[in-house]
Amino acid sequence: MKATFFSAALATLAAAAACVSAAPSPANPFDLRHSPRDLFPRMNNGASNNNGQCRNSNGSSLQGYQPPLYTEPLRPQIHFSPTVNFMNDPNGLVYSNGTWHLFYQYNPTQNVAGNQHWGHAVSKDLYHWENLPIAIAPEEEGHGIFSGNAVIDFENTTGFFDESTPKDQRIVAFYTLNTPTSQTQHLAYSSDGVNFTKYPPAVISRNQTQFRDPKAFWDETSSRWIVALALSQEFGIVFYSSPNMKDWTEVSRFQSYGILGYQYECPDLFQVPVEGGPDDGKMMWVLAISINPGAPVGGSFVQYWVGDWDGSKFTPRDNAVRTMDFSKDFYAFSSWNNSPGKKAYAVAWASNWQYTNVVPTTPFRSIQSLPRELTLKYYRPAPQFGDLILNNKPANLSALGGQTLYRSNGTGNLGNQTVALTGEGAFNIVATFKLPAGTNATYNTIGSFEISSGDGQQSVKTGIQMGEPAVAFIDRRAAGPSFAADNPFFTDKTSGIIRYEANYTSEQHILGPLPPSAHLSTTGRDQYIKLQAVVDRSVIEVFVNDGELAGTSVFFFDNDQTPSQLKVSIGDDKLELVSLRVRALDSIWADCKE
Amino acid sequence: MKATFFSAALATLAAAAACVSAAPSPANPFDLRHSPRDLFPRMNNGASNNNGQCRNSNGSSLQGYQPPLYTEPLRPQIHFSPTVNFMNDPNGLVYSNGTWHLFYQYNPTQNVAGNQHWGHAVSKDLYHWENLPIAIAPEEEGHGIFSGNAVIDFENTTGFFDESTPKDQRIVAFYTLNTPTSQTQHLAYSSDGVNFTKYPPAVISRNQTQFRDPKAFWDETSSRWIVALALSQEFGIVFYSSPNMKDWTEVSRFQSYGILGYQYECPDLFQVPVEGGPDDGKMMWVLAISINPGAPVGGSFVQYWVGDWDGSKFTPRDNAVRTMDFSKDFYAFSSWNNSPGKKAYAVAWASNWQYTNVVPTTPFRSIQSLPRELTLKYYRPAPQFGDLILNNKPANLSALGGQTLYRSNGTGNLGNQTVALTGEGAFNIVATFKLPAGTNATYNTIGSFEISSGDGQQSVKTGIQMGEPAVAFIDRRAAGPSFAADNPFFTDKTSGIIRYEANYTSEQHILGPLPPSAHLSTTGRDQYIKLQAVVDRSVIEVFVNDGELAGTSVFFFDNDQTPSQLKVSIGDDKLELVSLRVRALDSIWADCKE
Repeated sequence: MKATFFSAALATLAAAAACVSAAPSPANPFDLRHSPRDLFPRMNNGASNNNGQCRNSNGSSLQGYQPPLYTEPLRPQIHFSPTVNFMNDPNGLVYSNGTWHLFYQYNPTQNVAGNQHWGHAVSKDLYHWENLPIAIAPEEEGHGIFSGNAVIDFENTTGFFDESTPKDQRIVAFYTLNTPTSQTQHLAYSSDGVNFTKYPPAVISRNQTQFRDPKAFWDETSSRWIVALALSQEFGIVFYSSPNMKDWTEVSRFQSYGILGYQYECPDLFQVPVEGGPDDGKMMWVLAISINPGAPVGGSFVQYWVGDWDGSKFTPRDNAVRTMDFSKDFYAFSSWNNSPGKKAYAVAWASNWQYTNVVPTTPFRSIQSLPRELTLKYYRPAPQFGDLILNNKPANLSALGGQTLYRSNGTGNLGNQTVALTGEGAFNIVATFKLPAGTNATYNTIGSFEISSGDGQQSVKTGIQMGEPAVAFIDRRAAGPSFAADNPFFTDKTSGIIRYEANYTSEQHILGPLPPSAHLSTTGRDQYIKLQAVVDRSVIEVFVNDGELAGTSVFFFDNDQTPSQLKVSIGDDKLELVSLRVRALDSIWADCKE
Repeated sequence: MKATFFSAALATLAAAAACVSAAPSPANPFDLRHSPRDLFPRMNNGASNNNGQCRNSNGSSLQGYQPPLYTEPLRPQIHFSPTVNFMNDPNGLVYSNGTWHLFYQYNPTQNVAGNQHWGHAVSKDLYHWENLPIAIAPEEEGHGIFSGNAVIDFENTTGFFDESTPKDQRIVAFYTLNTPTSQTQHLAYSSDGVNFTKYPPAVISRNQTQFRDPKAFWDETSSRWIVALALSQEFGIVFYSSPNMKDWTEVSRFQSYGILGYQYECPDLFQVPVEGGPDDGKMMWVLAISINPGAPVGGSFVQYWVGDWDGSKFTPRDNAVRTMDFSKDFYAFSSWNNSPGKKAYAVAWASNWQYTNVVPTTPFRSIQSLPRELTLKYYRPAPQFGDLILNNKPANLSALGGQTLYRSNGTGNLGNQTVALTGEGAFNIVATFKLPAGTNATYNTIGSFEISSGDGQQSVKTGIQMGEPAVAFIDRRAAGPSFAADNPFFTDKTSGIIRYEANYTSEQHILGPLPPSAHLSTTGRDQYIKLQAVVDRSVIEVFVNDGELAGTSVFFFDNDQTPSQLKVSIGDDKLELVSLRVRALDSIWADCKE
């Protein structure tokens, strides 16, 4: 990450709002031309206190915050956020000994980006997180522990472990050390999954200040370690190989693909199972690259390629570039290493550098997206053309308890519906809209959800405009006007096209898996589209047809309002609402509120 | 173009609003699965009346429109728009015998897309347009004359001309004939630049319904005609060659590059002069492709590649995709063939298919962008990396008369300024902002223009957030809330990064040409950025540093309001406004208002 450069200017502003002690006044804020040397007081890897999942990762007291932590009106209840202060990229995602590890870029001293550490949390189910102490902290003022990932060194190729450490607890973290004059790549290791020891020398350096964000993995193809790194302003992803993670040799480069933006960041090369088409059942490779700024929608976004990895080189299937999320708050995508089974899971930072430092949340800023389960789905957008797209849907939401607020399946057209959203502010809303065969979509053939504040004055919307192609949208224009109207970068409306359609029967509208796709352009067939929105106080994540299209948007209701009412609407009388399920989700932070 | 499929649904709605006789009620509107057969009453190439530049291109009476044509509050005054009814893609752009020809996709019977003809206008200066009769009309109901281009057949390779026709008046138009069952490529020719004769047989057909938008040119490299065509839903641009424009042979394909969206449209391969860098002074090739829908910002947009053309095949310099415009209303980009000198000129349709059929203009819909002069500018975003970007700026605006409203150059910091915008609603606003060496940008280091309505209740904004990279934005959130709030696709805020900076001295702030770029990351150097906005009643076109970045947004003030006041603001006291010029531009439609 390079976030620190963007954010430092806001330190003073934010410190006042966030009830934390201010760092020294920033001398060189915001402007990327200046390094933020004097903004980075070093944090000790302080001894943790023992408050369970609410334990503050920087070890400072959490007493006295009002309201109690995790009860703030804009605080998501089922998404990970730090107790206090600023978080950005997910880092070091690894599954070890039955535990999912989430590290993250963290400023333990301010509620704006800067002073980068690796924060840490663990989970058994990808939803319920326990906050842990800072995992990796810089040694010197002005240094930052920037993004990277973590692996399991089963065979102790590094020599960091002894035989007493179970093989799947041998965690090696790979991060970028940022200093005012360089970005170099470093290791730290842990035998207990909590405490990390640094391996002092840089393992890769290039005399570069724009060289960062290692993503390492054990490559079965070549029986060696591989790491991908971003040469950020050269728009290159460079791959290295190593037998031991200490000695690295450059093996290939992926150069100048896709939307370049201002810089490449956070490469992630990983395997994903294919569903459907000629490669059904195989694992294929996906390379994701984050860019910031310069996204077509403004600021930061993630693009990806599907292709082959031969042990040394990634070759994309084509020269097209695909985007991971149609909306504006999904960045620094990262997948978990060592996921059990042939499964791929990932998470992204649900914010955007264009405004993340000034969003009106306190005493924390930013959340991680819902954990996503990934597959590559085959579809045929035209008879002459088949393609694979990265399907991403929430990992098993049944891990979250909750209460059903509405449920109706397959009993004909439900028409418009209004549902009171009672609970803690987190809801899973799933509907299926049907455009019957022989009818035709118009501009207003839109099935939509409008989620309103308790005072009825604000709302966020999502919907599907039926037809071919159908289009999904998120509209946050009416949510939190005090921020949305003033910030010149907080884009209100985003949309994406729906590339294939569910082929559901009515019984499958909600609960069934998506069948393998078929070409949809068959006049006279019913068109069914499934829309899911997970709304959580200040974020909405939209999934179409179980994840063929996803959109993530934050929003900020004014006046301490939370999502309180749902209106499901069919925009004209051609459209039918054929199933609807609404469930209130229990907070994952219940223990923190006491 | 495939616009007809999107739009037909709105026919009834729009006809009522637009005071034109309604076509038969649409049976198969909007949904792309259905062909709009019964929506397309055939138009005769009617005899023109003789009203000069205001002559209606469909030959019907223009009497009785209130207010008089081209005086409507939302009607741009220096942009081309049809007298009445719906226009989309520019077509057939060619310079012939001292005249710039602009053909365009036109529905002469309704104010929504459909019933496609080639409308026609001509100009001597790319700004002042004379409306001419329909150039090419379909022969049968249900057929459409879809997009294409035109060339000068100097050497009469087609045999369409006799010796009495001056060589540079031998115009051949190349268009797609759309029928319910096919898209095939056809020719029509004209010796007088007004009346066209169809050459009946299809010259290229592929048994395809998604095959369209020919862009032909005489290729000096291979001494033959070349045409680029879109295989829209296969995401391919296919190139053919011919000695005579009648017999074509496929020579290469450009497959699956960039953002695919739902379909490729309107390929344009053309030569552009290079400014700066190792190729300074050369002509290089640019391939532009429009996609719709599926743009990252929603709906339709244009992407391009810079590369080499060897007479048979286009090879891009890299696999990156670049976008032509950072905002949302710039589509179907097309360049002029046969431009005099080594110059490249182009225009685009300033709208977006996501909402074009429902925008609140009447009795016309859509405009063409300002004509743009194109160059390829060399810059170095990083010491290790040089690149060429397509610079686009308005063609010589001095062709437009007008009155200077404010002018100050290089006399120190002007601070905030307010200027009354008196005139006809069209203004050219140019400012230079300076961030002095040794100061640092913050989030609020923004230089901006706010253009307000006469009632002070609405405004559109554009600005530059200084720093590295600096970012330009357009914000139309506060313009025309009745449309902007209701339409789920009318995105309010768009932005783009500024890749290099002007290196002006103060004397050059406004009037001087941009010097060749140098790498900008020099701490301690003054940062100057030049912001130009051409505002014209319901459109704003923004150019940064004379065209290194461009953004085009339509907006629609409510209550018959027009742009009436300008506020130029510097967001914090670090920033300086060092020059400002504001000029009211005379209407190009003065003769039409009598």
